[in-house]
Amino acid sequence: MSTLVTGIAELVTNDPSRGPGPLGPVADAAVVVADGAVAWTGPRRRAPAADASIDVGGRAVVPGFVDSHTHLVFAGDRAAEFEARVSGARYDGGGIAATVAATRAASDDTLRGRLRGLVAEMRRQGTTTAEVKSGYGLTVEDEARCLRLAGEVTAETTFLGAHVVPAEYAGRREDYVALVTGPMLAACAPFARWIDVFCEPASPHAFDGDAARVVLEAGLTRGLQPRVHANQLSAGPGVRLAVELGAASVDHCTHLTDADVDALADGSTVATLLPGAEFSTRSPYPDARRLLSAGVPVALATDCNPGTSFTSSMPFCIALAVREMGMTPAEALWAATAGGAAALRRPDVGHLGPGARADLAVLDAPSHRYLAYRPGVPLARALATDDSGPSTDP
Amino acid sequence: MSTLVTGIAELVTNDPSRGPGPLGPVADAAVVVADGAVAWTGPRRRAPAADASIDVGGRAVVPGFVDSHTHLVFAGDRAAEFEARVSGARYDGGGIAATVAATRAASDDTLRGRLRGLVAEMRRQGTTTAEVKSGYGLTVEDEARCLRLAGEVTAETTFLGAHVVPAEYAGRREDYVALVTGPMLAACAPFARWIDVFCEPASPHAFDGDAARVVLEAGLTRGLQPRVHANQLSAGPGVRLAVELGAASVDHCTHLTDADVDALADGSTVATLLPGAEFSTRSPYPDARRLLSAGVPVALATDCNPGTSFTSSMPFCIALAVREMGMTPAEALWAATAGGAAALRRPDVGHLGPGARADLAVLDAPSHRYLAYRPGVPLARALATDDSGPSTDP
Ligand SMILES: [Zn+2]
Ligand SMILES: [Zn+2]
Repeated sequence: MSTLVTGIAELVTNDPSRGPGPLGPVADAAVVVADGAVAWTGPRRRAPAADASIDVGGRAVVPGFVDSHTHLVFAGDRAAEFEARVSGARYDGGGIAATVAATRAASDDTLRGRLRGLVAEMRRQGTTTAEVKSGYGLTVEDEARCLRLAGEVTAETTFLGAHVVPAEYAGRREDYVALVTGPMLAACAPFARWIDVFCEPASPHAFDGDAARVVLEAGLTRGLQPRVHANQLSAGPGVRLAVELGAASVDHCTHLTDADVDALADGSTVATLLPGAEFSTRSPYPDARRLLSAGVPVALATDCNPGTSFTSSMPFCIALAVREMGMTPAEALWAATAGGAAALRRPDVGHLGPGARADLAVLDAPSHRYLAYRPGVPLARALATDDSGPSTDP
Repeated sequence: MSTLVTGIAELVTNDPSRGPGPLGPVADAAVVVADGAVAWTGPRRRAPAADASIDVGGRAVVPGFVDSHTHLVFAGDRAAEFEARVSGARYDGGGIAATVAATRAASDDTLRGRLRGLVAEMRRQGTTTAEVKSGYGLTVEDEARCLRLAGEVTAETTFLGAHVVPAEYAGRREDYVALVTGPMLAACAPFARWIDVFCEPASPHAFDGDAARVVLEAGLTRGLQPRVHANQLSAGPGVRLAVELGAASVDHCTHLTDADVDALADGSTVATLLPGAEFSTRSPYPDARRLLSAGVPVALATDCNPGTSFTSSMPFCIALAVREMGMTPAEALWAATAGGAAALRRPDVGHLGPGARADLAVLDAPSHRYLAYRPGVPLARALATDDSGPSTDP
């Protein structure tokens, strides 16, 4: 079963052999999809025949967004905490501890329903691959449960037992690290591809460089690949640790020294920027231009979570990256697609070259520029190109 | 024919007699709609019977957004200009003159198609009333044509012949003002409710305080009510002129002196803030908190236009107002609904008190706070509550 997609005013392939620059755009284009993969892309007039066809009506088609950093397995509601924070009120609602308590108390079905609802919401906004972290269970059983549920919707599951030190381990961080790297890791490893840690010496609830190294190295011995939350609140050791350990991605990168930028430029780690977090917490944005100028590969992701960035919209992150972080519309789109794929080391997504997964996003617009040009407008949606039903990986 | 709307987790009425504060919220609520108007609101358990019912499934319902400032009648594409601007390139694509040329060259059907597409897009995002300005025709015939088309979709039509001095009148601003206040006004007045002027002495293409006064007073003699673009680029005379003339609204208000704020506080003119313009042009945001603290009524609108703010999303403007302008989520929602209605002097929209137009927006969320808490996510949509088809006013 093959499907010909036509009516594409602009096709962004992220395949430089198809058109000028990293986006490899093709005007008046077509795509042939077969068996869930891209079989052909090029000008409409040269398109081969196919069994079925879809006309997208003169719209742009881009690779589905790859959201390489989310926290979608949780229960509870922190809208009141958000309101208090932005209104200057003192109530804090308990912060992440409130989400941990609600998540532990929730049934599998409750967590699954929320998770699937968010994944569907993302798909309606053009996201076709999402990484999902644990990190709101923080017990052996609850972390494993959250990862098992995450694995129902994505192959990109990340064990984040070292998200924060939970209240019951207050003042006993070493004991908690022993739990995370011991029985919790053993229970979680079967359900996770990645291991992550919130490396932030400036926070009393997070992990310093030494603890982060212990966590990541323990994960590596179990076959989990590292990625790191680092340099969000201060210029700590996390970025250089991530590069040293060959992490696929180091995420946030809001506060960087020159040595951090140099390390990223010399290494193989993607810098993943999460402007939704800075938007929601009213913090200064990371400087994407500085990273791009140094030759560092950059990804954009939502950090979708109920506390510090409850957006699921990759187009919103693209618009913020252009407004606030010095990225061009083309650089931001690349970062939200190919950049995210690089941050997950997934050669099969984030582009529309032959053999790529058939993850197409249609824009209600004639070019990719509109993602930044029309901020806040729901222009993107994932395109269903076959009858085999939704893929399990969102 | 009456319809009962149930399953409302939170109903924002903007009717202070219904609940605490300006939003007048009701929990676990219902609404009865009859003959296109709100007949009853209150707790679900007390709801009267009706002929039909709609269950919104535990979502929040708010008054449909009132977008009191848009420029939706135009042709052409300025995405390349946007890209160049945000990328630091010199190409300017001709700016507003490019839109004027494309609009003049476009057929009625082309303009109508674009206009109706944008109105439908707004409705899908929860906007149920939109003001629409002329201002890209700038000839007698084209301004009248644009207003005639605007009148097909809204009662809130605004004659903005004094948008800029067109190229063919370069260096002859007084001649152009004579055209605007003479034959152009005569041709446009039958199609317009409002008259507007871009008062900005700092711009060589706009109008100073004296010219703005001439334009607005000419409109008043023809029965058009004034509203003003003012103080966007500098603290000019526009705000005080608007207050003096009893304008319904003065829009932008980015650069204000203390005297401007005092005048607004003492007058009856709404200050309409347009953060989409500051987002798109990377300019500093207006200070909503300063206005609110002085007791000035504030509205939020999109300024939807192809040059400086191509968003149609009122939720996006709400999120920006909270992030950047010192508004609480409740203040921002009020400004986007009741504030917009005040800026259009429309007692029938912007609230859900008895007798109001049945303009309900449903949020895919349990409370109004999510509009700011979940930026960029398409949570809002207008609710169709009867079978009489879409209202002509979007
Ligand atoms: Zn995170
Ligand atoms: Zn305007």
